[in-house]
Amino acid sequence: MSHLSKASCEACSAHAIKLSAREIEDLLIEIEDWELITRDGIQQLTRTFDTGNYAKSISFTNAVAELAESSNHHPLLIVEYSTVTVVWWSHKIKGLHLNDFIMAARTSGVF
Amino acid sequence: MSHLSKASCEACSAHAIKLSAREIEDLLIEIEDWELITRDGIQQLTRTFDTGNYAKSISFTNAVAELAESSNHHPLLIVEYSTVTVVWWSHKIKGLHLNDFIMAARTSGVF
Repeated sequence: MSHLSKASCEACSAHAIKLSAREIEDLLIEIEDWELITRDGIQQLTRTFDTGNYAKSISFTNAVAELAESSNHHPLLIVEYSTVTVVWWSHKIKGLHLNDFIMAARTSGVF
Repeated sequence: MSHLSKASCEACSAHAIKLSAREIEDLLIEIEDWELITRDGIQQLTRTFDTGNYAKSISFTNAVAELAESSNHHPLLIVEYSTVTVVWWSHKIKGLHLNDFIMAARTSGVF
């Protein structure tokens, strides 16, 4: 598991600074299987988890939700029969913060 | 609540017949607030529910999941901080079956 999953999220205000392209490139190496996408001009991290069945999709959704609430940082979740897609970004800065990489690493840990 | 929410889903096989445009038009009147969309050439029913907060989004997601499991018919769920978007269609026939309207009505009932 990435050392990122052990780091703490810091409060992210609208004045927080987005990660640079170089920082993002370096951090992506730490979270294998996550993809960098740009949606509506906003950089985001996404990964689709194959759960195998619906009960597991819902169970994983609840585990990610618990993680989100405990960190006060919430992803977009797309729940289908045997997959759950998780998308992390920082709404306040309309882009990626270190917090998003921490949460992505933790999400993989939960899975 | 629509009388559709009291109807039962029947098993939907790949040989089931899709609803006609006229049937869809008539049934849409029964499920206010649901929108007919076409995604990847497949007609679907969608509604975004405003939950107000994350705990309620997760609670509603679980309620819809329970409904889905009990009917063995599963929607696409998009879970965000204060909204949950539900999308119903019949995968096997790549379109809309009466079951989808029943499930849409029941979903509104759960909300």
